Amino acid sequence: MDPAPDRRALRVVVAPDSFKGSATAAEVATALAAGARAALGDAARVRAVPFADGGEGTLDAILGAWGTGARTCATTDALGRPTTARYGVSPDGRTLAVEAAEANGLPQVSDVPLRPLDATSRGVGAVVLAALDAVPGAQEVVLFVGGSATTDGGAGLLGALGARFVDAAGARVTPGGGGLRSLADVDLTGLDLRARALRWRIACDVDNPLLGPRGAAAVFGPQKGATPQDVAALDEGLARLADALAAATGHDARDLPGAGASGGLPVGLSAALGAELVPGGTLVAEAVGLPGALADADLVLTGEGRLDEQSLHGKVVDTVVRLVAGRAAVVVVAGGVELTPGQVAEAGITAAFSLAPGPRSLAELSRDALTELESTAAHVCRLFAAGRAAP
Amino acid sequence: MDPAPDRRALRVVVAPDSFKGSATAAEVATALAAGARAALGDAARVRAVPFADGGEGTLDAILGAWGTGARTCATTDALGRPTTARYGVSPDGRTLAVEAAEANGLPQVSDVPLRPLDATSRGVGAVVLAALDAVPGAQEVVLFVGGSATTDGGAGLLGALGARFVDAAGARVTPGGGGLRSLADVDLTGLDLRARALRWRIACDVDNPLLGPRGAAAVFGPQKGATPQDVAALDEGLARLADALAAATGHDARDLPGAGASGGLPVGLSAALGAELVPGGTLVAEAVGLPGALADADLVLTGEGRLDEQSLHGKVVDTVVRLVAGRAAVVVVAGGVELTPGQVAEAGITAAFSLAPGPRSLAELSRDALTELESTAAHVCRLFAAGRAAP
Repeated sequence: MDPAPDRRALRVVVAPDSFKGSATAAEVATALAAGARAALGDAARVRAVPFADGGEGTLDAILGAWGTGARTCATTDALGRPTTARYGVSPDGRTLAVEAAEANGLPQVSDVPLRPLDATSRGVGAVVLAALDAVPGAQEVVLFVGGSATTDGGAGLLGALGARFVDAAGARVTPGGGGLRSLADVDLTGLDLRARALRWRIACDVDNPLLGPRGAAAVFGPQKGATPQDVAALDEGLARLADALAAATGHDARDLPGAGASGGLPVGLSAALGAELVPGGTLVAEAVGLPGALADADLVLTGEGRLDEQSLHGKVVDTVVRLVAGRAAVVVVAGGVELTPGQVAEAGITAAFSLAPGPRSLAELSRDALTELESTAAHVCRLFAAGRAAP
Repeated sequence: MDPAPDRRALRVVVAPDSFKGSATAAEVATALAAGARAALGDAARVRAVPFADGGEGTLDAILGAWGTGARTCATTDALGRPTTARYGVSPDGRTLAVEAAEANGLPQVSDVPLRPLDATSRGVGAVVLAALDAVPGAQEVVLFVGGSATTDGGAGLLGALGARFVDAAGARVTPGGGGLRSLADVDLTGLDLRARALRWRIACDVDNPLLGPRGAAAVFGPQKGATPQDVAALDEGLARLADALAAATGHDARDLPGAGASGGLPVGLSAALGAELVPGGTLVAEAVGLPGALADADLVLTGEGRLDEQSLHGKVVDTVVRLVAGRAAVVVVAGGVELTPGQVAEAGITAAFSLAPGPRSLAELSRDALTELESTAAHVCRLFAAGRAAP
C-alpha cells in the first residue's frame, strides 16, 4: 500500500480553528500536524497554519502565523479600569492586529455586576493609539471583534482617538451606550491623523444591523446584562449616534450588515474612518497566508470544536472549503460532528470525523483533545494515503 | 475529486463482527454497506459479508452468508430440560453448522440456580443427530463453541451419539462433569456411524488446556457457578475422562491448546471422533466465503464493538487483516478504538475510527450504533475515494 515511487510527496495542510475551552488553534494545528507526520513520515510535506474565524483566539492564531510574538500595552477595560491588552504587528510592520475584546471584553468585567449602559469601547482606541506610537510605519489595522461587554457604537473607541461626543449644551456625554441618549453632536476634527490615514478593516461574522429587533442592543444586549429597559435605552442611544455620525460625515452605516456587531463598534469606525467590514475567516486567512499554503495541497485537515450548521457560515471550516474550492480533499476533525454525511458532502467537505475514540464525556474529550486530535489525524492521513496508493 | 473516468469501479468489502449488545454482524454489515453505497454511488461495487469470530452470533453470520435459513430441532438444555435449537446447512448440503450454546448455553439455564456439576453437553449431541437425520448427505460439521454452561469434557455429547461412560461397577455415570469423578471406562463401540464418518471441526478461540490452573474448570468454571470445591471436583472428573479416553482411543488430547474450551468439549470430540480445532475466525471466514470476496477488494471495512489488544488475536478484525494480507486497505469502525495509531498500523490495519460522533455515553452509542456506523462508513469511503482521485 505504499505510494508508487514515482509519485510526488503528498502535500498536507493543517488549518484548524481553536477548540473553544479545550485548545487554541495553534495547539490544535500542532496536534493535527504531528498526527499527519507520524502517519506519513517522509512521504509527505505537512504544513500547519493555525487559523481562526475572527472570534476568540484570533489574535493568537495570527501571532502564531506571523511568528512575531504579542506586544502589550496599558489600556482600560469596558468599565474604565486600568488593564493591559495584547496586539500584534505583522513581520513587515505594516499591519496591526487588534482583538477588541482584549480591552472591551465581557470576561474582563465579569468580576463585578454587569453595567451594560456604562460599558465603553474606549480602551480599544487606547490600544490602537499605543500601537501607532510603537509602530510608526503601520498602514493598516485589522480589528477582530466579538465577546464585547459594550454597546456604545464605537463612540468610546473614537473618543480615545480624539473625537468629541457632546450633548445639546456642548458638554461631553457620559461614556457608555447609556450616555449616547443625550448625544446631540459629534466632532471628528480632533481625530488622530495617523488613525485617519490607516486602512481599517473589521473582521465581522454577523450580519446584524445596528438598530431594531435584530440590532446590537436587542440581540446581544441581554448577554451583556441588559434588561429590556436597558435594551430600549441602548437602542435609542445607538440611533442618536448613527444620526450624529451621518450628519457629521454624510455616511450612514446603520443598515450595513454587521453594523450591529460588538455593540455597534463597526458603525462608528465605518462612518468616521471608512472602515470596511470583512468576513472574519477571510481576513484571518489572508493575514496568516492561508490561500498560498492551500494552493497546491492534496489534503487539508481543518477542525473546530463542533461541526454543525453554524460551521458552514463564515467560520473557519467554511473559509477553508471556499479557499480550497474543490482542488483538494478537505477533512474536518471535530469534537462533535453534528451534520449528516449528506450535509457534510453538500458543504464541500470530503469527510468529517469526531476525535472521540469511543464513549466519552465532554469533559473527557476536552481533557484528551490534543492526544485524540493527533490520533485522528494519523488515521485520516493513513486512509487518504492508502486511497492514493490504490489501483 | 471524482475518480478519473478510466479508473475501474472501487471495490469495497464489508466484513464486520457483531457489536455485542448493540447489533448483529448482519446489521452492522448492512449499515456499513449502506454508508459505503451512499458515499460512493455507482462508482463502486460494495459487497457485504457479515462475519463472526466463532463466538456468540456465529450461526447467524453463517446463515446470513449461506442464505439457507435456520433449521430447528428438539433437544435438551444443559440441565436436561426440553428445548429447541437451531442449526445450519450449507447450500450444497455437505456442511452442518452447529452452535453448541444453542443447546448447552449458559443463558438458557440462567432462570434457575446454576448447577455446574450437573450441566451436560448431551443436548449438543442431540442436535448433531437431528441434523444427520435431516441431512443424509452431510459430510462435515463445524461446531462453534463458547458461552457454555457445561464442564463435562464433551462426555454428554458423545453419550448422545452412542458412547457409554461407566463407573467401576459398569453402571453409567451420572450426567455432568461432577459424575465423571466416578468414571472408570468409556465404551465408544456404539458411536453413531454417521457421526464417526463426519469430518469434525471445532471453532476455538482460546488456547487453554483441559486441566490445571489454566484449564476448563479453573478458568471458566466460576462463571458457570462453580465454587472452589466444584472447580476441584470438575478438574478431577475431566482428568478421569482424559485418562479413560486415552485408554480407549490411544489419543490423549488433554494438553491440546483449546482442549479446555467450552467445558472441555474438544477433548472428547478430538479423542473419540478426531475433531480438529481451528481458529474460529478462519473457520467462519471460510464458511461465509470471505477469502474469495476479499481477493480483489480495494477497501475492506470491518469492525467490532471495541478495538483493543484482544482484537488482534483470532478475532474478526485479525482474521480479516490476515486474509487481506496487505493487498487492500483495511479500515476498522468500532464503538471504541482503544489502540494507538501506532498499534493499529503495526497490526496491519490502515486506519481505525470510532463511530462516536462526539461526546456520547455508552448507552447513547449503543442506541445509535447502526446510524453512526452508516455515517462513519460514508466518511471513510469518501476519504478513501478522494485519496484515490488525488494526483
